[in-house]
Amino acid sequence: MKVEVDCIPCVFKQALSASRRCTNDVYTLRRVQYELMKLVPQYSFELTPAEMSYYAVKAANEVLGCEDPFAEEKRQSNVAMLDLYPRLKKIVESSSDRLHTAVKIAAAGNVIDMGILHRFDVRGAIDDLLNGSFRIDHYESLRRDLASAERILYLADNAGEIVADKLFLETLGRKDVVVAVKESPILNDATMEDARAVGLDEVAAVISNGSGMIGTILDDCSEEFRDVFHAADVIISKGQGNYEGLDERPENIYFVLKAKCPVVARALGVEEGEAVLKSNAKGNR
Amino acid sequence: MKVEVDCIPCVFKQALSASRRCTNDVYTLRRVQYELMKLVPQYSFELTPAEMSYYAVKAANEVLGCEDPFAEEKRQSNVAMLDLYPRLKKIVESSSDRLHTAVKIAAAGNVIDMGILHRFDVRGAIDDLLNGSFRIDHYESLRRDLASAERILYLADNAGEIVADKLFLETLGRKDVVVAVKESPILNDATMEDARAVGLDEVAAVISNGSGMIGTILDDCSEEFRDVFHAADVIISKGQGNYEGLDERPENIYFVLKAKCPVVARALGVEEGEAVLKSNAKGNR
Repeated sequence: MKVEVDCIPCVFKQALSASRRCTNDVYTLRRVQYELMKLVPQYSFELTPAEMSYYAVKAANEVLGCEDPFAEEKRQSNVAMLDLYPRLKKIVESSSDRLHTAVKIAAAGNVIDMGILHRFDVRGAIDDLLNGSFRIDHYESLRRDLASAERILYLADNAGEIVADKLFLETLGRKDVVVAVKESPILNDATMEDARAVGLDEVAAVISNGSGMIGTILDDCSEEFRDVFHAADVIISKGQGNYEGLDERPENIYFVLKAKCPVVARALGVEEGEAVLKSNAKGNR
Repeated sequence: MKVEVDCIPCVFKQALSASRRCTNDVYTLRRVQYELMKLVPQYSFELTPAEMSYYAVKAANEVLGCEDPFAEEKRQSNVAMLDLYPRLKKIVESSSDRLHTAVKIAAAGNVIDMGILHRFDVRGAIDDLLNGSFRIDHYESLRRDLASAERILYLADNAGEIVADKLFLETLGRKDVVVAVKESPILNDATMEDARAVGLDEVAAVISNGSGMIGTILDDCSEEFRDVFHAADVIISKGQGNYEGLDERPENIYFVLKAKCPVVARALGVEEGEAVLKSNAKGNR
């Protein structure tokens, strides 16, 4: 999907939120906004929203001289989710369809997003989704595909959230899944350091996608990653950023995400705040 | 109060929302946003948020060649609130403190705002406030001041909302209150045409403030209005725009509003979405 005009105000808001992680100085914060007013008109509307956000956040970081504004919050959300992990594990183990429960928890974990959202309640999101259902639920198709798949690729999204991803992969019960994380820090997206911090590497083969961009921008990814991507029988893609860049790909992708903004909600045909487990295969409803 | 850096992304969003009332053409909508990127850096941070919004919305209307984008929605909200009026009237009449109930309904009516909010539920807001309370409630002080006041000025905010204002003024039971509306259309703010459409002129002396700006920017108001303003014993001021420009005035003002954005909520010391009936007198808590 491509940038919509609604992404313009949003990109200023995202950049402001990211900037506040580096400074509270109002003059510097304004300077970042003014800088973006020069840059945003140069961005093509052929970009995905994730790409536009990436360029804006990078420009903000440059003005601020701040490379990884979310480092501390990422550590905190990894720790907070690890604290929650034993309870989540029990919920999965006591449920009638463990894998369905685990994928719901993985989707609810996607509420952890410091780029778009400014407040989030991960426990509330998990309760809501466990008591409710995906707005679009292609779980049966995913289950069948996973059962026969030889090569499974899992595209991680955020730090903290990857604890829920780890629980899903444990529940799936195979150790040959490849999990891709970001090469370098961007927003609160998970990197190799985060994967190791939560022990994701104990349940899967974690690789870097070779890119530090938001989402999965294949042209920016490493050749090694692209090979894995193209060869996968099933790809599970977490979060908005990945959806924005991969929604029109021909590979067999299941998008697991919360719709956090009106633009993506519209593209998915759901309401803002709703979670989906959506296959990109035309055969699925 | 003055513009904060958070007002920048918000002003792009407000202008987009207003622009959509005139056109769905994405190229035109982008053009408005690009135009604002040239203009916003020229706006002084000594402005109130309402003034900045005004300049941005006016600039957007100019690009669009569209003078009154909210005309139809204003008519609709007047009609919708008039439909609701008999029920609201009964609620007031059956309550133990009619004036307190009426001012709560007037505050809840302030949820009708097409500038900042994009969805609102006026019935829900009324129920919430009737079942709950103002976050800051200087009602006792207002009641005493109104009892002894000779000259009362009421600064209206939005179309539709003025039906709830009318109910409050009926409940107050005196016909000498002066209600000020906007001289010309801006967002969904009430003008003389709206006041007449809902019969506000039957319960009070409705005047124009002589200005078409958001809020009450005294320097832009007519001399006639300024005379009324300075001579008033009590001023009841509806909505954010008025609060933003008048919060530091020495007159005896009671602000009745819902805090619709984080900047105003912070200034009031309340949470976003909460309603207040706040005196600007230092003696009040």
